[in-house]
Amino acid sequence: MNGAESLLKSLVASDVEVCFGNPGTSEMHFVAALDAVKEMRPVLGLQENVVTGAADGYARMAGKPAATLLHLGPGLANGLSNLHNARRASSPIVNIVGDHASSHARYDAPLASDIAGFARPVSDWVHSSTSARSVGADAARAVAAARSAPGQIATLILPADTAWDAAESVAAPLPLLPRMHADGSTIDRVASALKRGVKTVLLMRGAALLGDALTAAGKIAAKTGARLVCDTFAPRLERGEDRVPVERLPYFGEHAAEFLAGTELLILVGARPPVSFFAYPDKPGWLTPEGCEITVLTHPHEDSAAALSALMEAVDARGAQARVTRREAIALSLDGALDAKSIAQIVAMHLPVNSIVADEGISSTLPHYEILNNAASHDFLNLTGGAIGSMMAVSTGAGIASPDRKIVTLVGDGSAMYTVQSLWTQARENLDIVTVVFANRGYKVLNNELLRVGAASNGPGAAAMLDLGRPALDWASIGQGLGVPAFRARSRRAFEEAFAAAMAQRGPRLIEAVIE
Amino acid sequence: MNGAESLLKSLVASDVEVCFGNPGTSEMHFVAALDAVKEMRPVLGLQENVVTGAADGYARMAGKPAATLLHLGPGLANGLSNLHNARRASSPIVNIVGDHASSHARYDAPLASDIAGFARPVSDWVHSSTSARSVGADAARAVAAARSAPGQIATLILPADTAWDAAESVAAPLPLLPRMHADGSTIDRVASALKRGVKTVLLMRGAALLGDALTAAGKIAAKTGARLVCDTFAPRLERGEDRVPVERLPYFGEHAAEFLAGTELLILVGARPPVSFFAYPDKPGWLTPEGCEITVLTHPHEDSAAALSALMEAVDARGAQARVTRREAIALSLDGALDAKSIAQIVAMHLPVNSIVADEGISSTLPHYEILNNAASHDFLNLTGGAIGSMMAVSTGAGIASPDRKIVTLVGDGSAMYTVQSLWTQARENLDIVTVVFANRGYKVLNNELLRVGAASNGPGAAAMLDLGRPALDWASIGQGLGVPAFRARSRRAFEEAFAAAMAQRGPRLIEAVIE
Repeated sequence: MNGAESLLKSLVASDVEVCFGNPGTSEMHFVAALDAVKEMRPVLGLQENVVTGAADGYARMAGKPAATLLHLGPGLANGLSNLHNARRASSPIVNIVGDHASSHARYDAPLASDIAGFARPVSDWVHSSTSARSVGADAARAVAAARSAPGQIATLILPADTAWDAAESVAAPLPLLPRMHADGSTIDRVASALKRGVKTVLLMRGAALLGDALTAAGKIAAKTGARLVCDTFAPRLERGEDRVPVERLPYFGEHAAEFLAGTELLILVGARPPVSFFAYPDKPGWLTPEGCEITVLTHPHEDSAAALSALMEAVDARGAQARVTRREAIALSLDGALDAKSIAQIVAMHLPVNSIVADEGISSTLPHYEILNNAASHDFLNLTGGAIGSMMAVSTGAGIASPDRKIVTLVGDGSAMYTVQSLWTQARENLDIVTVVFANRGYKVLNNELLRVGAASNGPGAAAMLDLGRPALDWASIGQGLGVPAFRARSRRAFEEAFAAAMAQRGPRLIEAVIE
Repeated sequence: MNGAESLLKSLVASDVEVCFGNPGTSEMHFVAALDAVKEMRPVLGLQENVVTGAADGYARMAGKPAATLLHLGPGLANGLSNLHNARRASSPIVNIVGDHASSHARYDAPLASDIAGFARPVSDWVHSSTSARSVGADAARAVAAARSAPGQIATLILPADTAWDAAESVAAPLPLLPRMHADGSTIDRVASALKRGVKTVLLMRGAALLGDALTAAGKIAAKTGARLVCDTFAPRLERGEDRVPVERLPYFGEHAAEFLAGTELLILVGARPPVSFFAYPDKPGWLTPEGCEITVLTHPHEDSAAALSALMEAVDARGAQARVTRREAIALSLDGALDAKSIAQIVAMHLPVNSIVADEGISSTLPHYEILNNAASHDFLNLTGGAIGSMMAVSTGAGIASPDRKIVTLVGDGSAMYTVQSLWTQARENLDIVTVVFANRGYKVLNNELLRVGAASNGPGAAAMLDLGRPALDWASIGQGLGVPAFRARSRRAFEEAFAAAMAQRGPRLIEAVIE
C-alpha cells in the first residue's frame, strides 16, 4: 500500500464516497489508486470550479463531504471562487491538493506556488502532509474538520512523495463533535420574548429550513404570529406545495429595510443579522430596524432543528396548525412574449414533485421567486457567496448525490459562461439536470447597478463591459458541443414544449430561453 | 472627478491603455468612468482567467502592462492561475480588484473575502487604497511596480468608496528604475570562460531571445562554438526563417540531462539553472551535469540585450556570421492520417511571415517543436507556468497588442476547455486568431505520466479522470456557439484546406483537428 491508497481508503473509512477532480502529473499515484479503491467514485470536471462547485452541491444534498482532487496551486486557484461559495453555504468539503514531491520544493519549478496561501482564505483547516505514513491519519482529520458544524472547508496538501512512498495503515474515522444544543435558558429567553406578542421575525438559515424543523417553525409562527423569513441566499430550503412558506429577505438593502420595518424582535435561527449584499453611497448596510431587539436562538454551528422543536414546546405550539403552501392556478397565455416571468410560471407548472431547483437566474429570477413557490414540493438551492458561476456546478454535484431526483438549473447567460464546462460532466455522468439559460444577452443586473450606485454614465465604454450581445452566445450550439441535447426557445409556446418534454425524460438537457 | 476617474486617468498617464475586465457591482464607478476616459480601451472577458491571461499576452507583445478589472476576491480568484503563468512569464500586469466600501467591511457580507490573501501568492506588490484622494498615486505606484524588471504583478485593491468619493488629481507617472547592466567584470569573467574553449551552453530566457540580442548570441555562438539553448517554456522567442536557431531544453528531466550531458560550462542569460518540471520517483530534479560550472551573465532582472552585446565585443564576435534557420522543403503526403506531426508540418508550411504562435499543444506539439521552426519568421509564445488554460487567453491579449499580426494558437482539447470563453472575446474584438484544437479526446500527457511515475494501474478508475472521449467534445459547435467560425478536420487534406483558408482571411477561426 502506498500513501495514495492509504489516503483513499482512509477517506472511504470516514464515509467519503465521491471524489470530484481534475488531476495532473503530481496526482498520478492518487489517480492510479482509484482502481484499487473501488468504493471511491471518481467524477471528472473539465475545470476546477466545476469540481469544487460540484462538491458544494453534493454536500448540500448528501449532508456529508465529497473529496476534491486538485492539481497544485493553480488547480486549487481555479476552484477558489466556488469554494468561497461553498464556505458561505457551510458545505463540508475535503480538498486534496497535490504538490511537488518534498525533494523538489527547493527548485521553485514552474508550477510551484504558495498552495497554503491560496487555500487559507477559503479554508477552515489547512494541512500539508509530511509522510506517506501519516497521510491516512491526515485524511481522517481533514474529514473531521470538514464535518465540524456547521460544515467547513478542509484542505489537505499532498506532496507527491507522500502519495508514492510506502504507507502502513488505513486511518479510522474520528469521532464527530456533538452538535451544540441551545440550552434551556436560551429556549426560555426566546420563548418569553415570543410571548410578549411584539412584531417578531424569525430569520432562518441552514437546517431550520428543512423537514421537521421547518414544520416546527411553521407551528411557532401559527401560534405566536411571528413571521418566518429566510436569508436572501439560503444554501438550501424546502419549498412548494404542502411546505411551510417562508418569506425571503429582499436582495436590495432598501427593500429589505422596508420589508423589516416595524419589526420589534428579530430572532436569529442559524442566521446572522441581515446586512446588504453591497454597499452603495447613501444607502443602508445594516438592515435591522432601529430599536428592534435581536436575540439568538441558534448560532450557525448550533442545532437549529433541536432548538426549534424545543421552542415549539416552550410556546405550546405542538398542536398548532402550520400554514402550508397551496398551489394556485397559473393564468398564462402561451401567446405572449417569452420573458423571465412567463418562464418562471412554466417552470412552476411543470416542476415534478421532489425535484431540486438550483437558482442563479439573478435579475431574471429574483423578482419571480414567489412564482416559483407555486409548484410541487422541491428543494431550492441558492448562490450563497455571490461568486457567479456556481449553480451549474452545484447542480452537477447535487445530481451525483441525488440521482433519482429531477434537477432544474435556472441560470443567466453571464453566469452560465463562467462554469459552462459543468454541462460536459452532466452529460458524462448522465445526470438528470435541465439547464434553463435566461439569454438576455448581458450582465443585466449590472446595468441596474450602474444606475443604483449613482454612476452618471451609460455610454459605450461602460456598455463594452456589460453587454453580451455582440456576438450573441448560441447556447444551443454550446450545449450540443459539450454533449448535452440543447434547444432554443424564443416563444412561450416553444419554451413550454421544450421544458415539459425535458421534465418527461431523464437525462441532461439545456434550453436557451431567448428574452432579449 | 471621482476616485475611479482619477484612477483611470492616472493609469493612462502611466501609459496603460488597455483594461481587460469582468466587473461587478463594486466596480460600477470604474465602469462608468470608462466613458469619461476614452484613452483606456475596455475589453471584456467572460471569465477572469481570460482577463488575466489576456493581460499576460498583451504584456508579452506590447512590452508594457495592461490593467485588469476584477470583481472582489472571487473575481481575482478566478484569474489566479493565469496570473501564476504571467508571473512565470515575468509579464507586467496591474490588477485592479474592487472591494466593498470600507464602511461595509465590518459586515462580512456574502462576497467579502480576504482579497489580499488571494493576491499575495501571485503578486509582487499588493496595496489596498484608503482614499479617493490617494488612488491616483496608488495607480502610478502600481504601474511602477509592474514595470520593475523583469516585469511584475501588481495588485491594487480598490474599496468602492475610494472609487465613488471625490478625488483631486491625476498622478504623474513614476520614473522607472534603470535596468541593471552586467558590469565589466562580469563580462570579462564570462568572456574568459567562453574563451577557454570548453563545451559551453548559453541558457537563455527573456530579452536574450529577441531581436539584436538573439543575433548577438548567434554571433557569440559562431565565434566560440557555444550552444544556444533556451528554457523549455520561454515566454517569447523569435523563431523561423532567417532567425538564429536556439535549441530547446527538453521537457522531461532525463531527456534534458542527456541533452546537457558533457556540458562543462553553463552560462545563464536571464535564465535560472535548469530543473525538471515535475519530480518523479528515482529521476533527477537538478539537471546541470555533475562537474559543470555554472556562471551568470545576467539574472532575470538584468539587461540581457546589453550584456550579450558587450559579450559579443569581448569575445571579438561582432564580425562573426551567425547561423540562421533556412527553410527546408516539407515532404508530406496529404493522403496519410491526420496526426500531430502532419498538423505541425501543415502549420509550418502556411504560417505567414511575422505571425505569432501561441503553444499549449502539450503532448501534441512538444515532440514537433523543431518542425514548427521550419516556417516563416514568427514569435513563439509558451505556457510558462504549467497552469493549463493559458494560451487561448494569451493569444487574445496578444491580438489586442498586435492587431496586424496573424496569431495561431495550438492547443490540446483538455487545455482548450479551461478558458474556452477566450473565443468569445476573440470574436467580439474581431481578432486575427486561428485556434487549432488537437482533439485527441483525453489528457494524453497524463496517460504518459501515469506510466512515468511508476503507477501500476491504468484501469477504469484512472481512465475516469483522464479520458475526454465520453462524450466527445464537439469543437465545431463550441466555436460556433461562442461566435467563432469553426471547422472540423479529420484528414490531412481537410486540415490543410481549412488552415490555408484561415491564413488567407482575417478574423477569428477555430479548427478542430481530430487525431483520435
